[in-house]
Amino acid sequence: MTLATKAVNAKPLAGAGPDIKGMVDDWARFSEDEGKLTRVFLSPEHKACTESVVAAMEAAGMTARIDAVGNVVGRYEGATPDAKTLITGSHIDTVRDAGAYDGNLGVALPIACIADLNARGKRLPFAVEIIAFGDEEGVRFPTTLSGSRSIAGSFDPAALDVQDAEGTSLAEALRHFGCDPDGIAGEARNSDEVLAFVEVHIEQGPVLEAEALPVGTVTAINGASRFALTLEGMAGHAGTVPMRLRKDALAGAAEMILAIEERGRTDEGLVATVGRIEAAPGAVNVIPGRVGFTLDIRAPQDGQREAAIADLDKRCAEIAERRGLTLSMERLYDEGAVACDAALMDQLDAAIARQGLRPLRLPSGAGHDAMALGALCPIAMLFVRCGGGISHNPLESITAEDAEAAAQVFLDFLEHLDPDSLAR
Amino acid sequence: MTLATKAVNAKPLAGAGPDIKGMVDDWARFSEDEGKLTRVFLSPEHKACTESVVAAMEAAGMTARIDAVGNVVGRYEGATPDAKTLITGSHIDTVRDAGAYDGNLGVALPIACIADLNARGKRLPFAVEIIAFGDEEGVRFPTTLSGSRSIAGSFDPAALDVQDAEGTSLAEALRHFGCDPDGIAGEARNSDEVLAFVEVHIEQGPVLEAEALPVGTVTAINGASRFALTLEGMAGHAGTVPMRLRKDALAGAAEMILAIEERGRTDEGLVATVGRIEAAPGAVNVIPGRVGFTLDIRAPQDGQREAAIADLDKRCAEIAERRGLTLSMERLYDEGAVACDAALMDQLDAAIARQGLRPLRLPSGAGHDAMALGALCPIAMLFVRCGGGISHNPLESITAEDAEAAAQVFLDFLEHLDPDSLAR
Repeated sequence: MTLATKAVNAKPLAGAGPDIKGMVDDWARFSEDEGKLTRVFLSPEHKACTESVVAAMEAAGMTARIDAVGNVVGRYEGATPDAKTLITGSHIDTVRDAGAYDGNLGVALPIACIADLNARGKRLPFAVEIIAFGDEEGVRFPTTLSGSRSIAGSFDPAALDVQDAEGTSLAEALRHFGCDPDGIAGEARNSDEVLAFVEVHIEQGPVLEAEALPVGTVTAINGASRFALTLEGMAGHAGTVPMRLRKDALAGAAEMILAIEERGRTDEGLVATVGRIEAAPGAVNVIPGRVGFTLDIRAPQDGQREAAIADLDKRCAEIAERRGLTLSMERLYDEGAVACDAALMDQLDAAIARQGLRPLRLPSGAGHDAMALGALCPIAMLFVRCGGGISHNPLESITAEDAEAAAQVFLDFLEHLDPDSLAR
Repeated sequence: MTLATKAVNAKPLAGAGPDIKGMVDDWARFSEDEGKLTRVFLSPEHKACTESVVAAMEAAGMTARIDAVGNVVGRYEGATPDAKTLITGSHIDTVRDAGAYDGNLGVALPIACIADLNARGKRLPFAVEIIAFGDEEGVRFPTTLSGSRSIAGSFDPAALDVQDAEGTSLAEALRHFGCDPDGIAGEARNSDEVLAFVEVHIEQGPVLEAEALPVGTVTAINGASRFALTLEGMAGHAGTVPMRLRKDALAGAAEMILAIEERGRTDEGLVATVGRIEAAPGAVNVIPGRVGFTLDIRAPQDGQREAAIADLDKRCAEIAERRGLTLSMERLYDEGAVACDAALMDQLDAAIARQGLRPLRLPSGAGHDAMALGALCPIAMLFVRCGGGISHNPLESITAEDAEAAAQVFLDFLEHLDPDSLAR
């Protein structure tokens, strides 16, 4: 490309993809493991990373500080002092042996957008805050979303007493990090002053790749329920018990697994997964007398999820009854769905369309900081395509082209957003 | 019952049930474990048991000896010196923590029959040998059926070098037992002199109990094949991968397990079992990318078994293809079926009917010494009902009534058998 053609085609953030990827790749060196990425909440690596994030924010024309719970909070003032605040951002903690882009992209990409606004001297009719949350993955402590919950005002002070594997409490770790746990309550925002929370995140799934799209608009963060199912039949000799006299717990489980798959397939947005299975006694020549398996079921709407659970409960009970098996189904976990705001979704779709891309809506099957912010303000998420749908894995990848396209969509969204259109 | 009515109703072996059970229960004290039954080939407990068996045979009017491979061979001469020999018997070795009746009943019950003939001074038109085989379970050495193969002339001398867990060779163990390994070849019988081998054994399955019958006539010792199947799909996040984009190895395996069950159900006598399954990575929130499972398939006829295997190979390949999974199916083991002799089955059925019982034919899903004897002579088996179909378990049981009924059937069979009807 010559300079002449570049000038003709130039649009904001043209060529910014490598810079955004480079910022994330740079942060990936803050890891407790040599040669792989592991950065847990309030670790020395986390501390080093926050310093790099602060520097990047300041270079983009923002003010930046570490708050009482270890979040990095960068602020780009609005056109007027009384402007409301749009919050964006994501997390900079990681799982063990992580990919670089999970969370981190949602911090680096908005920084590039603000840098562009700042270079043009442009202020928006709202302030923008980018928050780099420190505790989304929940790897170190038996709690999670501490950072986003603090901002939302839903942080439970009892969580300060939870301990990591070494016996260090969250309160101690915060103090060691340089934070003041007593200040956490003061980090809670007033919902009147917050316009929305809009998070950019890699999809962590294969939908955008399958649709050949760099970005998509998230409809909801799916609710999830988990169950442990146990089937009791009768063990017996694989040679001596005729088929008609068997109570084969594994054959019963197989029928249930297919019923679960079918229920998932026939309900748009619902996903249902059997991830673990154990058959006992587990010998090649013994009919399984007992099988345990798990069910993970998620949907954008709680009613949709509960309807599927009720159907599967009935279907599995029928299968067990017909086969003479005893079924128990224990609910282990429930997390409600958090819907994205309709007006924000429309605005994201409009920005996507203005950038010449086909808008696509998709639910988020994984949890995100936006879940916690849903308690404070309208939320939305912009998903960015990742290679092979792979995440939580060193093979996690995005392209520079997708990073650029996503940044251009997000900047377009910010520049076109009318704060009055989001009156609650 | 008064003496008068007993005299009117008396038939051979009336009241013999407790004696037969008692003989087996008495041998159960020969165990290496206190409080449970474990009696492996050529152990001191096996030695002590053979001595008790010899004594019981001699008390029944038989000659008895320990042969070169550790079998107890009891002989009851026929009416003429040139009479052929009918061989019966079963094994007196056990699995670990065994039931008392597996094998042992097939030695004790014929001894009671011969004792009855002897008490009446009755000789048959054939000699009867009862052999208490020492190595059917294959627990101690990595070989099995040494005793019955020696009689059949199919014992492989190379097996003398196999070692138990302590490094003792079979040859050394035989010598220590008082046997001469060099004499094993000489134990092989001449097929011209052997009329048949007819084994009495507990069913080790639930068919006779379900049919409310004390005995049944075995049609064949089923052939068996075993396979290891592996399915490769694609692991993924249970929340982020939509149902339509999944390659769920466990859902594919579930469909195959049901196809296997259905193929078994629609083919009389065939049994097909998936006893082991492992799904990887095996986390509640991860779609299984890899599943391994086993297939054990048995049938009375080899052609029937191979036809089912060919069908299942095709069905499983179709399922894998449709689901985008990669399937491998490795054959681990094959054992051909051994058919029971038609004339002997008819004679057993006739004896059952004469005893006022409904004849029922059923295949044997488990292996038996009769398998090895099939290489020498026509074989047959009489199955005896066991409680709950349970075997290889201390809960293994039979009733005294069933022991008596089975002994009466077997004695009736012996007394009515015309040796000329079995000309090969």
